[in-house]
Amino acid sequence: MKFNFFQALIPKDKKFFPLFEKASANLVEISRVLYEAIAKSSPERRKELIKEIERLEHVGDNITHEIFHELETTFITPFDREDIHKLASVIDDISDYINGSAKRLELYKLEKMTLPLEKLAELIYLGVQELHNAILELHNMKNPNKIKEACIKINSIENHADDIFDMAVAQLFEDHTDAITIIKMKEVLSILETATDKCEDAANVLESIMVKNA
Amino acid sequence: MKFNFFQALIPKDKKFFPLFEKASANLVEISRVLYEAIAKSSPERRKELIKEIERLEHVGDNITHEIFHELETTFITPFDREDIHKLASVIDDISDYINGSAKRLELYKLEKMTLPLEKLAELIYLGVQELHNAILELHNMKNPNKIKEACIKINSIENHADDIFDMAVAQLFEDHTDAITIIKMKEVLSILETATDKCEDAANVLESIMVKNA
Amino acid sequence: MKFNFFQALIPKDKKFFPLFEKASANLVEISRVLYEAIAKSSPERRKELIKEIERLEHVGDNITHEIFHELETTFITPFDREDIHKLASVIDDISDYINGSAKRLELYKLEKMTLPLEKLAELIYLGVQELHNAILELHNMKNPNKIKEACIKINSIENHADDIFDMAVAQLFEDHTDAITIIKMKEVLSILETATDKCEDAANVLESIMVKNA
Repeated sequence: MKFNFFQALIPKDKKFFPLFEKASANLVEISRVLYEAIAKSSPERRKELIKEIERLEHVGDNITHEIFHELETTFITPFDREDIHKLASVIDDISDYINGSAKRLELYKLEKMTLPLEKLAELIYLGVQELHNAILELHNMKNPNKIKEACIKINSIENHADDIFDMAVAQLFEDHTDAITIIKMKEVLSILETATDKCEDAANVLESIMVKNA
Repeated sequence: MKFNFFQALIPKDKKFFPLFEKASANLVEISRVLYEAIAKSSPERRKELIKEIERLEHVGDNITHEIFHELETTFITPFDREDIHKLASVIDDISDYINGSAKRLELYKLEKMTLPLEKLAELIYLGVQELHNAILELHNMKNPNKIKEACIKINSIENHADDIFDMAVAQLFEDHTDAITIIKMKEVLSILETATDKCEDAANVLESIMVKNA
Repeated sequence: MKFNFFQALIPKDKKFFPLFEKASANLVEISRVLYEAIAKSSPERRKELIKEIERLEHVGDNITHEIFHELETTFITPFDREDIHKLASVIDDISDYINGSAKRLELYKLEKMTLPLEKLAELIYLGVQELHNAILELHNMKNPNKIKEACIKINSIENHADDIFDMAVAQLFEDHTDAITIIKMKEVLSILETATDKCEDAANVLESIMVKNA
């Protein structure tokens, strides 16, 4: 049996891993609600779901603060202190961007959802699920390859989101003669796409943790 | 009396702290001038202040270069070399974005200032003052909690700026039928909002320095 | 003779340096093709070159993956594992943004190139050449000053690109009354400018490697 450096380096931890799992589980829920709001809801139902997204964003905020608080009061951490800080911050960013997307739908009074909006919301949901799986695996660390695979999938999801965004914007120029409609749609597409960028940033933090401890 | 790890780890330093204090004091001045230009000036006076902002941005550049130069020639630093590099770079970014905002006002020939522009300029000014206080405290390090509190305030200022930006853009869609005016205003609002993002990045560097040395 | 800490700290490496050199040489080629496409080509020829850019982007992707693979399987690295990861990622980003610029030209059906587009493409090409020179020097490390000089040039190229972008957008507002044309052009100018930002990020990684090992 090959010696696993990783298992040797990460001490048993009862504080940070459960908090990160709570944080990424909350991300799965908030992105599921966003996907439902965009892909499967009437305008009235969407309004309710946007409120729910705002509530879940506050839940996420509290978990982030818990992690920061633990970091201040804990001497020995399962991986680098600054990586704990980075990972918590980027999870918080994803939740912010999801909430920001939902807010813009409402603020810009966009009632008609489109296929690229649905597709991007679905990609966020998929990316966040991969992130959650990677974080669960970070705890057990029985199979570091699973983390690597999740990160590769997140990268490919982000590439896909880039393509969807580029083509959707080009399509806006084909379909609309009203510049204001184009600007509004482009803004919402753009913040959704940025949420997948942030998933990739989270994957980069995980990769960097693995690279340091490999 | 609790042992203060922080005080133990940061040696007395006569080079970097004074330079960072100069850099953040310059930020306070440049953001004060921006606020004055946007909130309290006639178009003629604004033109003069925009020139003053450009001058202060060059002053900031020179301080950044001094910090980088010290970094190359100094063997023992008060905190991690790479964090000194990051903190100096992000302070330089804030100054760049403030100057960029001022330049756009002029380039786009925007003569009529609006309440959200004023509010964002005020938030930058407030955020930069918190940053300056945190940096002064970094030197004394008598009360690390003060740095933490400043960082929390900077984060909350950035959240506030996000909300102002989102609502201001939504309002543009309500108030204007001319897409070009919307684009111009959105660009200026956006760069002002990004300046508060950069303040948050600076707070993150400070938090990361504290986390590493806690 | 002054003792060179740098040479002492970086062991002879036959894996990473050649891969980074391949990666930055590919960047030089992809940015050269972008410059040719924008500055010197008929619309028909441009289409072919955009395909070539896409091909080179895939070549770059494969080099990035090779670097990541080496990182997983190599125990001793010539500089910090996380900096290898960061440098490879940011080189990949530059290539992505160059390909993204080319794609937008095609997707938005922009046939008429402008002077600011040419100028930005040229600045990317120049910045990438400086980056390539710095990376070649990283290997020999006979003259660390050369890396520093390349980084300073990259920073100044990025500042120049910022100015070109700002003035070009202001000019769009002067020259066009059609908001949709403005939006399209602004999007392409913006992604080109972002490519120079990413060159600056790469320079920051190099500076940070030097700062850590100084």
